[in-house]
Amino acid sequence: MGADNISQVLPADVVSIAQGLDEFIVENEKTARHFLGAIKHPKAIRDIEFSTLNKRTDDKDIPKLLDSLVAGKDVGLMSEAGCPGIADPGAKLAALAHKKSIRVAPLVGPSSLLLSLMASGLNGQRFTFLGYIAVEKAARVKELKTIEHKSKIHKETQLFIETPFRNQHLLEDILANCDGETELCIACNISLPDEFVVTKRIRAWKQTELPDLHKKPTVFLLLG
Amino acid sequence: MGADNISQVLPADVVSIAQGLDEFIVENEKTARHFLGAIKHPKAIRDIEFSTLNKRTDDKDIPKLLDSLVAGKDVGLMSEAGCPGIADPGAKLAALAHKKSIRVAPLVGPSSLLLSLMASGLNGQRFTFLGYIAVEKAARVKELKTIEHKSKIHKETQLFIETPFRNQHLLEDILANCDGETELCIACNISLPDEFVVTKRIRAWKQTELPDLHKKPTVFLLLG
Repeated sequence: MGADNISQVLPADVVSIAQGLDEFIVENEKTARHFLGAIKHPKAIRDIEFSTLNKRTDDKDIPKLLDSLVAGKDVGLMSEAGCPGIADPGAKLAALAHKKSIRVAPLVGPSSLLLSLMASGLNGQRFTFLGYIAVEKAARVKELKTIEHKSKIHKETQLFIETPFRNQHLLEDILANCDGETELCIACNISLPDEFVVTKRIRAWKQTELPDLHKKPTVFLLLG
Repeated sequence: MGADNISQVLPADVVSIAQGLDEFIVENEKTARHFLGAIKHPKAIRDIEFSTLNKRTDDKDIPKLLDSLVAGKDVGLMSEAGCPGIADPGAKLAALAHKKSIRVAPLVGPSSLLLSLMASGLNGQRFTFLGYIAVEKAARVKELKTIEHKSKIHKETQLFIETPFRNQHLLEDILANCDGETELCIACNISLPDEFVVTKRIRAWKQTELPDLHKKPTVFLLLG
């Protein structure tokens, strides 16, 4: 989450709740400290307790992250961008909280997936988020064709992402392998000043200059 | 959207943007007027222009909703609950805006789908929103079995909804027809004071007193 556009992406009450907590489970401690500074957390940052939960965290280390919660304390879960547990760490912690009957309260924040879908004009009555797409060329082309076919059959918008430095390659593969009539929405740098959300049919994308997606967080939305 | 908990669900900048618009396309005019009153819109409500876009709007009436946008004016799109275009009207308008090269800018707000998924502890790396589930008993049971099977194969969380007065029946059908090991999250009245988000295996739900979901907006999340 950007620490520079808080009033743009977080409701005031969510900021208040964060200001009232002194223990956080975070994806990245440095960014979390920066965020708490930006929202003017009333406590000195050195008095705030941080534990880390990210993709390198071993499953066996998750239970002890719940110790304070089991003792009755409120603890915040903070992820880098997007929402905890959605294309980000956190789900295993929430799952364990449910097993221990600890209340999990979601807070409103920006989700590039939902913001993209909302702005895309594609079907929001039925959609699938697939996560990261295959990296290897042949597997990726096969996956794209499956995605397109499934989307056409179910009239279901398919959302997927790629590691940002490979976005341009993914876009080229989509244009080379999908049907001209298929609709593609490219949603790039959502909620940043150069936000770009454009939907066109594949044949129209092929006739336009392509946007520069290199190293920019991008969601691809496809409707066959 | 509740007009009573704005600071809980909308960032200040989103409220400012709404305060700066004097033309809105809305799902329900009465609620929209109430909302603009609640955010203290600087203009007299009678000087604000409303057009309606809801499930009764004929597709042929959508193009003229874009007239002001085509003329270069900013227009807000407001839906009742949740996000425009996602399980709510708006997608066809956004689609037409893209065709006319009008910028569509999504604003952060609450989505019961995303908030439920975030709090569920179920897989948020891959998920599908299916919309409303079949009403007729035999079709519904068949659909539930398909959903569960697909979820198990792809490790994909399946989200679905029902007309609120039929929630209790849907819950009974899920418990009667899904596997004991399948995980079910019930997310009810999200972002309201009596918010309830609980995840358990089907066999555990069968052993507990069931929550009262009657006429309460509820998202069902299933992971086989």
